[in-house]
Amino acid sequence: MKKNCVIGQSGGPTAVINASLAGVAAAALASPHIGKVYGMVNGVQGLLEEQFVDMGEVLAGEEQVELLKQTPAAYLGSCRFRLPDMETDTKPYEVIFALFEKHEIGYLFYIGGNDSMDTVHKLDAYAKKYGKDVQIIGVPKTIDNDLPETDHTPGYGSAAKYIAASVREIGMDSMVYCHPSVTIVEIMGRNAGWLTAAAALARGEGYPAPHLIYLPEVLFSDKQFLTDIEALLGQGVVNVIVAVSEGVRYEDGTYVCEGTQDCATDVFGHKNLSGTAKILEQKVKAAFGIKARGVELNVLQRCGGHFASLTDIEEAFRVGKESVRAAEQGESGVMMVYVRESDAPYQISYAARHIGGIANMEKVVPRHWINAAGNDVTPELLRYMQPLILGEPEVRIQNGLPVYLSRQA
Amino acid sequence: MKKNCVIGQSGGPTAVINASLAGVAAAALASPHIGKVYGMVNGVQGLLEEQFVDMGEVLAGEEQVELLKQTPAAYLGSCRFRLPDMETDTKPYEVIFALFEKHEIGYLFYIGGNDSMDTVHKLDAYAKKYGKDVQIIGVPKTIDNDLPETDHTPGYGSAAKYIAASVREIGMDSMVYCHPSVTIVEIMGRNAGWLTAAAALARGEGYPAPHLIYLPEVLFSDKQFLTDIEALLGQGVVNVIVAVSEGVRYEDGTYVCEGTQDCATDVFGHKNLSGTAKILEQKVKAAFGIKARGVELNVLQRCGGHFASLTDIEEAFRVGKESVRAAEQGESGVMMVYVRESDAPYQISYAARHIGGIANMEKVVPRHWINAAGNDVTPELLRYMQPLILGEPEVRIQNGLPVYLSRQA
Repeated sequence: MKKNCVIGQSGGPTAVINASLAGVAAAALASPHIGKVYGMVNGVQGLLEEQFVDMGEVLAGEEQVELLKQTPAAYLGSCRFRLPDMETDTKPYEVIFALFEKHEIGYLFYIGGNDSMDTVHKLDAYAKKYGKDVQIIGVPKTIDNDLPETDHTPGYGSAAKYIAASVREIGMDSMVYCHPSVTIVEIMGRNAGWLTAAAALARGEGYPAPHLIYLPEVLFSDKQFLTDIEALLGQGVVNVIVAVSEGVRYEDGTYVCEGTQDCATDVFGHKNLSGTAKILEQKVKAAFGIKARGVELNVLQRCGGHFASLTDIEEAFRVGKESVRAAEQGESGVMMVYVRESDAPYQISYAARHIGGIANMEKVVPRHWINAAGNDVTPELLRYMQPLILGEPEVRIQNGLPVYLSRQA
Repeated sequence: MKKNCVIGQSGGPTAVINASLAGVAAAALASPHIGKVYGMVNGVQGLLEEQFVDMGEVLAGEEQVELLKQTPAAYLGSCRFRLPDMETDTKPYEVIFALFEKHEIGYLFYIGGNDSMDTVHKLDAYAKKYGKDVQIIGVPKTIDNDLPETDHTPGYGSAAKYIAASVREIGMDSMVYCHPSVTIVEIMGRNAGWLTAAAALARGEGYPAPHLIYLPEVLFSDKQFLTDIEALLGQGVVNVIVAVSEGVRYEDGTYVCEGTQDCATDVFGHKNLSGTAKILEQKVKAAFGIKARGVELNVLQRCGGHFASLTDIEEAFRVGKESVRAAEQGESGVMMVYVRESDAPYQISYAARHIGGIANMEKVVPRHWINAAGNDVTPELLRYMQPLILGEPEVRIQNGLPVYLSRQA
């Protein structure tokens, strides 16, 4: 008997979360086991309010599928909603599973990162505990690349490509003047330095930037930072480019950016990190009296659809499709993962892994992929990242700008 | 008799200043009147130190010309060097014209913006006063689009395209959550709002951003700004996107960003403007208690070679070639300009205009191209900008990243 399915998106935007949505929806629409394919508006929050869109209508033609694949952010809208423990409050669970029953939904596909996998974990546990016939499948998504079990995450390759291209261009911009300068590029990444590490891909013959890379996996020291810059200036490097993670911390556990006005705390208890580059800019000016400039890459690194990685898009689309295959095979309480089969030629396969080992966990950069001095990455890390940024999609352009699929259209 | 020529680049980087360099160099190398083609390293500053490169060697093949055309920043390096008045100090002039004589240089092509045209003006005046047989030609360059006499400036179209695409993407990023938010995008432009106005190109069916646009041509008022946002929130707009120029000022003449630590002053007496978005973010948080985020587009808007305007690149290349033609026709003390022949179809021609009416002058956005409320642009301004962002170059890519021509290679 056919059952309907619902797909949700959750957490921060990426360049390819919609490619995964397209993949899940396309495979579900084609599946003999699945009837209607719903999208929930604004994740679990919209689900609780019964806000659905019909994905069959959204993806009426091949053109819509292709447009959705190149659209950044989150077509269905997102949320940052944490389900309560079902031991203390079953109310939202009852609402959700009543809606599943009402709409004859047998499959939930939830595309998101660490926090969203907590939702997958909890809904699956509830379904199992109360004998509900709904399969819950997690589809990975995060630019942060910090999900365990998977070789890398959908969204990371595109962010890495945007960051590497931007750092190369910022480097060229900085090098036009012959007066000494230090440019500090602040890159996203609270606890994991994967995104900041991608700045290293910018290097090549004629592109010396970035000269220094600081990840949150290594404790930050102002003294060492200024010593590193002094050494480069002493070696005759005129324009020093630094890549630094927004999440770098001092030995005492405080973030470098703390004390700025932006350190608000979100619903998951995360501090809003911002201002690291500006603070370091001031420290450089004070120490050396030379030109210094902080550049925050900001949200564009996660939503830069005009320069995404084709490898990332195609993998994100495929993992969406594979999640439907896993559902057809009876899986529930799993997240789909990438398994790297080989580096050269680069090849991955897809698998389902139990969500228990993934939800709320973070995978950081291993210490041995950071150099001993803690101010650069190793060639092994470069080899890991390089294939993920390859390929450029044929972006549809109208009036000089990329065309995206919007629910507001 | 053949004479040699020298080309310089000056002022801030753009995505197409190297396309103009390629155009001048290619035409000069092909000219029957010109022998050697030199590039001066770091503008007039490198000229004073006799630092030349041989452009014939740099552009040995067609591949190098194409690479230079897609390379952002400034291949030859730049400077911010102001020549003294020749009435008070002739020393640097004597050094420069002695070098011209030594290297048999009869033509100087100087690619730059307002400040650089001051150099063209002064060198030409000196040559005429002392009967030196050197022709001095200015080639326009600035993302700011603030040079008089020319319909628009090389570099503006690419910056406008980058800004419009980025604002569209930032808008999509902001709209994923259903909680009210205000995102403030800070765009370059000290006195002229052309770049900020380009944010309006981001709009379209399904792309409401930006909702508000503030240019430096209209005095800024915190009260009006907050009233504008309140009105939008009242109309049910959940995620408000604002484009604001870094150069907006209050009625008393102070910049909105003043008081931040970044207000240093450069050699031309310009304040380093930065922090406008962050300050407005705080004002929004204080007034409405909702999520607010300041995003500074920063240097990427001027050096984003990975998403430049093909129209801009080809015009910048062509105006370089036309400057050599003007030199062959005996012009000196002129800057090349674009003359718009028609809007539909978009067509421009090239001409030489006397530098006296250009150097040190700024062309701002006419008041009638800004709406009465001072928070948006008019359809006329949109029609003016639209053709300038059209077309995408075939960017050469290697290992997933754009390839650029670098002197450091």
